[in-house]
Formats: sequence, structure tokens, C-alpha cells
Amino acid sequence: MIEDLLPSFLRHSSISRIADGGVYITDRRALPFVRREVFCPDAEAVAKAIREMVTQGGGPLEAALNVLLLTYRTAPGRLDEAVDMLSASRPTNTTMKRELEAAMERFRNGEEMEGIVASVFERYDGIYDRLSDIGESLIHDGDGILTTCFPEHTFMLSVRKAMDRGKDVSVYVPETRPYLQGAHLTEPCLREMGVRCYLITDGMPAHFMREGRIHLYMTAADLALRDRTVVNKTGTLSNAIAAARYGIPYYAFSVGIDEGRSRDDIVIEYRDGESLRSIGGVRTADEHAEALYPCFDIIESDLVAGIVTEGGIL
Amino acid sequence: MIEDLLPSFLRHSSISRIADGGVYITDRRALPFVRREVFCPDAEAVAKAIREMVTQGGGPLEAALNVLLLTYRTAPGRLDEAVDMLSASRPTNTTMKRELEAAMERFRNGEEMEGIVASVFERYDGIYDRLSDIGESLIHDGDGILTTCFPEHTFMLSVRKAMDRGKDVSVYVPETRPYLQGAHLTEPCLREMGVRCYLITDGMPAHFMREGRIHLYMTAADLALRDRTVVNKTGTLSNAIAAARYGIPYYAFSVGIDEGRSRDDIVIEYRDGESLRSIGGVRTADEHAEALYPCFDIIESDLVAGIVTEGGIL
Repeated sequence: MIEDLLPSFLRHSSISRIADGGVYITDRRALPFVRREVFCPDAEAVAKAIREMVTQGGGPLEAALNVLLLTYRTAPGRLDEAVDMLSASRPTNTTMKRELEAAMERFRNGEEMEGIVASVFERYDGIYDRLSDIGESLIHDGDGILTTCFPEHTFMLSVRKAMDRGKDVSVYVPETRPYLQGAHLTEPCLREMGVRCYLITDGMPAHFMREGRIHLYMTAADLALRDRTVVNKTGTLSNAIAAARYGIPYYAFSVGIDEGRSRDDIVIEYRDGESLRSIGGVRTADEHAEALYPCFDIIESDLVAGIVTEGGIL
Repeated sequence: MIEDLLPSFLRHSSISRIADGGVYITDRRALPFVRREVFCPDAEAVAKAIREMVTQGGGPLEAALNVLLLTYRTAPGRLDEAVDMLSASRPTNTTMKRELEAAMERFRNGEEMEGIVASVFERYDGIYDRLSDIGESLIHDGDGILTTCFPEHTFMLSVRKAMDRGKDVSVYVPETRPYLQGAHLTEPCLREMGVRCYLITDGMPAHFMREGRIHLYMTAADLALRDRTVVNKTGTLSNAIAAARYGIPYYAFSVGIDEGRSRDDIVIEYRDGESLRSIGGVRTADEHAEALYPCFDIIESDLVAGIVTEGGIL
């Protein structure tokens, strides 16, 4: 049902699908200019695609579930190996690792793999639906909403439901350097949904907050802790601090609080600085420039109005 | 004297020079990859080059002074017309307009144009020298310094003098979308000067502040008011707010407080959103994306530790 409300990039078959004896994954790096899929004959190829950022956000989980099913059908003896490879392909994606291990646990306990995988897809659809009901309730008529990076299903559905209830909303979309997920994914999705949206640079959110054009800040969360600490794409902290200055509430969507972790356990990965020295193959800085690329920000709980979870607002 | 301390991009002859019966202006849009100059036979051509962003920051003043001298030598009857065209070429550059009008006033009062122009260049060298003495005094051994955009002479000289006095400093340089002046100008200048510097995205300053790696925030000021309001490149506000959260002082350099203006007089120009939809000719967003590009931020005085002026810290 939520499938009909989502922009095309976020429908299941547009993220990953099983066909021709393998798994196709839509290459998000090429969107929105080119729609192409990477064909993966097995789990090893899917793990490689995930490592190479062919898909991100909730995409790796969907691709991994598909290849789990494929492996079950074609090489059931290699299921454990597949899960290990997939889990290792994106260490920060604790959701994918957790879901794959839970699926294997159910499988070892005698459930059918077809049913297990279908139920996980279904469960996430339900989570997205419930989280976006809460998200929708946080949006007021006339709101300007800031987001960051590509907040996927929960945010898109929240905005969509708000519009369907007659609320007039505008969304401000930072382009989100270095990978430009805001420009490449978020803005096209919102525009397809008919949402009034504005592309801005990552340095501009405070400008529009000061001008009174932004009333709400909403992002996904790469990780959320019980103490209301949020870990999300770099740039989120800066915006959350500015939002606090202007009295704008910041809400993060989380498909599952990471119960086992505390703030001290969080180690921020660094990616290769090369992505800051070029954009889409065009050199934007000298090749000798030293560039730093920490992947995530840690946003302290005093900056977080609430984390939107299945159980309500934390 | 300061000429020897400056990185090559900021030496007078590298900004603009009179030769071959015209004025050459270094094309900052092509730096650091290509060093090329735009040849301007007259004031009209210089005004056009300024409008087209061939040079920016303190560059328009230098080019305008050069073409004022050239006009005096070749077509003295067209001096007033030249000043009008130049002043209109970048309305926010109130310094250029003020200096050109002051020069014409002195000329009408009987001074020699050659001497007038030379004295203005000399006076700015003196201002840069004095401001950077103050800037240097604000830098402590071991400091990580954040800047924004291309803070030119005053900042570069402050850092250079701090290093010359044995202070160990690191500079964090946001790339400064959409024109990437941080990546294209600031980082290469600092690297040429032997300063340890790190290129980051515009969304990352708060990240490094939170980690305790940044101790001081310093920028130029496009405009500074007596009440300590600063107008500077978009992105400055966001960083100033984050700096306030982490107890990091923010200082702006101003070559002249704009005495005649109040905050209410400031109208923020918007540039064409197209610059947010592409980088260096490569499309980064869909051509139908609506993009907003406000040129400047207004930074309220409570976020400003001080404005570094000729008369001391305001």
C-alpha cells in the first residue's frame, strides 16, 4: 500500500529485484541522470556492489534480502558465508546485519526462507507506514521543512501524507556534499511527488532558518541511541545546532533504536578524501590538497526534539 | 613588504596589472588549475569582467584602480563615466565605490592621478599589514582555525605571521559551494605558504568543532556594521552559530566599517540557481530543480567575538 505513495526511486523493484538468476540493484550513483542496474549473480557480487556504494541507506538491506533468497534457492550450503560477506560489506549498517542474522536464526529454526524474506519486507513497509504517520503529525500547514542527505521512506511518506491531508509544505534540500545525495536523490523524489522543494548548498540552512522560512528539521538516522543521541550524515550536527538557536525542532526517524550501544562506542569512519577533490569526475580541488571526510556526525540529545520510532516519539 | 609574505595569487601583479595599453585581470574562476588573464582595453571591459566574476573579494578594487589610471592616461574625459560603470559592476562592493569616488574627489582637487592611485594601493597594503598584526595576536600556538570562502590578505597574513613567530597552526577550509573558492583559492594559497590545511565540505565545520579540533573561526567580511553585525558569504552564519555552541570565538576582518548602514538596510542579493545545479560544467542536479542562492549571510553581533579593524578590535 505504501508502495503507491512512494516516489519511484523508493519502490521495492526500483531498489533491487531478483531476475535472470541473479539480483539487480539500481545504481544510485548514476541517479537521477541515468537509470541503470548492476547485475549481481551471487552474494559476493552484492557485497561488492554495497561496498562500492551502488546503493545506500535502506537499499543494502533490500539487496541483501534478495540475494539471501537467491542463495537459498541456488546454493543453500553457502547461506552462512553469504550472510558474513554481506554483513561485512557496510559495517555501519547495523540494521542489515541484525536482520540477516535474525532471518538465519528463523531459518535454522525451521521456517521457510521464502516466507522469512517476504515477512521482513512486509515488516519494514509497516514500520515505514507507522513512522510516517507520526512524522505527518509533526508537520503543520505552511511548514518549511529542512532535511539532510536522502531521508528515504519515512520522510517521503511523512511529507506525502501531510500533503494528502491538505497541508501546504515546502522542503529545503541541502545538496549534501560530497556524494550529493540531496541533489541526486532527495530533490528528484520530492519533485516527482509534487512537493514544492528548493535545492540549497550545505552551508545555507542557517540562512533560511534566520529568515523564518524553516519551521521543522527532519532527517533519517544512521544510528539512534536510547539516550536520544543521533548519528547521521555529516552536516546534520551543524543544522541541528542552528535549528536550536532559532527554536526549530529537530526530529530523526529511526527504524530501530540501537539498544546495545552507548555514545562512547561510536567510532566515526573516515572515507577517502578524494571524494572532496572531485565531483562527478571533474577535479574541484588540487590533487595535492589534503581533504578530510568523516562520514557521520554525532548529534547530542539536547539538540534532538525527538526520535520518531515504532513505539512513538522518544 | 607584505608582498613578500603573501601567497602568489594575492600579489598585486597576480591580481591585475597594466600592460599592452590595457588592464590584465587574473581569472580567479580558472584557478588553481589554469593561470590565465583576461585583457581589458578599457573601463567598460573591466566592469564587464567584474560582473562576470573574473575577480572577486579585493580583486575588483585593484582592477578598478588600474583602469582608472589607464583611463586618466588615455581618455581623461571619460573618467566620470568609468567610475560610474565600475561602481555599478558589483553593487555590494561598497569599498570599491567609496575608493573610486574618493580618488576622483582628490583628482578634482588638483592631485596627480598617478600619485592618487599609488597612494590607495599603499594604504591598503598598510591596512592589511595592521589588521594581520591584530589577527596574528588572536592566534595561539596549536590552534586549529576555521575559515570560510577566500579570506584573502588579512587572514593569509595573520596565519603567515603566526607561523613566522613559531606558532603551530592548522587551517580547516570549507570548499564553499557553489563557486568553491575555498577549494580553488584558499587551500592552494595556504598550501603554498606551507600551512597545514584540510579541505572539508561546508557541512563539516561543526563536526570538527565538536571534536575539539577547531579553536578559532576567522573570516573576511563583505560588510561590517558599527553594531558588530557582519555580512559575509553564505555559510558563515551556520559556522558562527556552531562556534558559539562550542565556545569558539569568531572574528571577522574588515578594511572599513560601513558607518552609513544599519542592519535593516541590508538586502541580500540572490544569484542564479543554475550555479547550484552544476559544478565546473558538470550537471550535479536535474535542470528542473528549483535552487536558491542567497549570496550573503547576516551574522548577528552576539555571535561575533570581534571585528578586526584598523582601529583595533570592535
